[in-house]
Amino acid sequence: MHNSNSVDLEGLEALYGPLAESIRRLIDVSIRTEVGADVVAAATARIETVADDLSASLTPGSLGIRQATDGRVVAWGNAVIGLRNPVAPPLSVHHETDGSVWAEFTLGAAYEGPENHVHGGVCALILDHVLGATAHLPGRPAVTGTLTIRYRRGTGLGRPLRARAHVERVEGVKTFAEGWIEDDDGVTVEANGIFIHPRRADPGRIDGEI
Amino acid sequence: MHNSNSVDLEGLEALYGPLAESIRRLIDVSIRTEVGADVVAAATARIETVADDLSASLTPGSLGIRQATDGRVVAWGNAVIGLRNPVAPPLSVHHETDGSVWAEFTLGAAYEGPENHVHGGVCALILDHVLGATAHLPGRPAVTGTLTIRYRRGTGLGRPLRARAHVERVEGVKTFAEGWIEDDDGVTVEANGIFIHPRRADPGRIDGEI
Repeated sequence: MHNSNSVDLEGLEALYGPLAESIRRLIDVSIRTEVGADVVAAATARIETVADDLSASLTPGSLGIRQATDGRVVAWGNAVIGLRNPVAPPLSVHHETDGSVWAEFTLGAAYEGPENHVHGGVCALILDHVLGATAHLPGRPAVTGTLTIRYRRGTGLGRPLRARAHVERVEGVKTFAEGWIEDDDGVTVEANGIFIHPRRADPGRIDGEI
Repeated sequence: MHNSNSVDLEGLEALYGPLAESIRRLIDVSIRTEVGADVVAAATARIETVADDLSASLTPGSLGIRQATDGRVVAWGNAVIGLRNPVAPPLSVHHETDGSVWAEFTLGAAYEGPENHVHGGVCALILDHVLGATAHLPGRPAVTGTLTIRYRRGTGLGRPLRARAHVERVEGVKTFAEGWIEDDDGVTVEANGIFIHPRRADPGRIDGEI
């Protein structure tokens, strides 16, 4: 964690949030566009110049986990919840007082597997994150040990979806969590996960939300 | 499958491949950029205008699966292997004559979970796809039934990785596959999957490669 790299959250959120949102929109329309070859070629060239400008100063490697001046810890580069990561939907994971978590979201063309359906692996990605979020405790992150995903039926693109998870039981250092992805017609995918609280934090194995 | 929507693969590959590559680069530098607020705001505005231009004509929904004039079936919108999908690394899955499959790839900042490490769910996404690719037969796609992922240790960002999978056994309509993600030091994540060949193809449940 870059403790030394404190950031002013509000200011940067207002700056980087719209950048990532515009790129999410660009991703979506770039997949679905049917404009002429000349427009596509011109768009490609313009994207390269924008990327050049943003490359004038880059953090090496990846964004990592950062601590804000107010003490909050943010994972803006995270592939599921990252505000600054255009690959992330991004999910906003809500924590209930009983320890359960949930998120509501809709997935578009960028998450396709079978025609008009969410890629099964994207469902696994989301469930890994949401189940992991139940196991994390302040200052005591958990790592994923085993994740089992059962696919009941297809998950539709462009439909309102909900992911939810809760802790089933705790046995020593192991937390057993279960969760689901649902649409208006019920569960599409279900998951069970075993998460482990290492005695000594090993950031290389910390999954999910911080 | 849009049989009526045949495409000239080579021409479109040369057009859309570079567009997606430029957006993959843009995604990476947008996460890591440390340029000033004015440059970020200007980049956001320019990306919106490029998205506007590409939006002049859009396929509704998602890209789906398309058949080329030469009979080949392409999944350019796929979240793991899609040539046109900037969210996809994209993986190029190689099929060996013994039925095993493999892919070599490196994942950057856009796939981060724990600091400097690949999100555990991204490993699940890739393994779902690669295991599924072993179970698919020409004209007889398989759907994922159950996927079990075991995390042995962290998977590094920016490191050469290899995913591989093969069929362990077949029992009636069920194909049992196993696979791994490895770096230079060995296995980081292992997976087992049960894939089912439905009697009647239900595209809503077809996972993985076509």
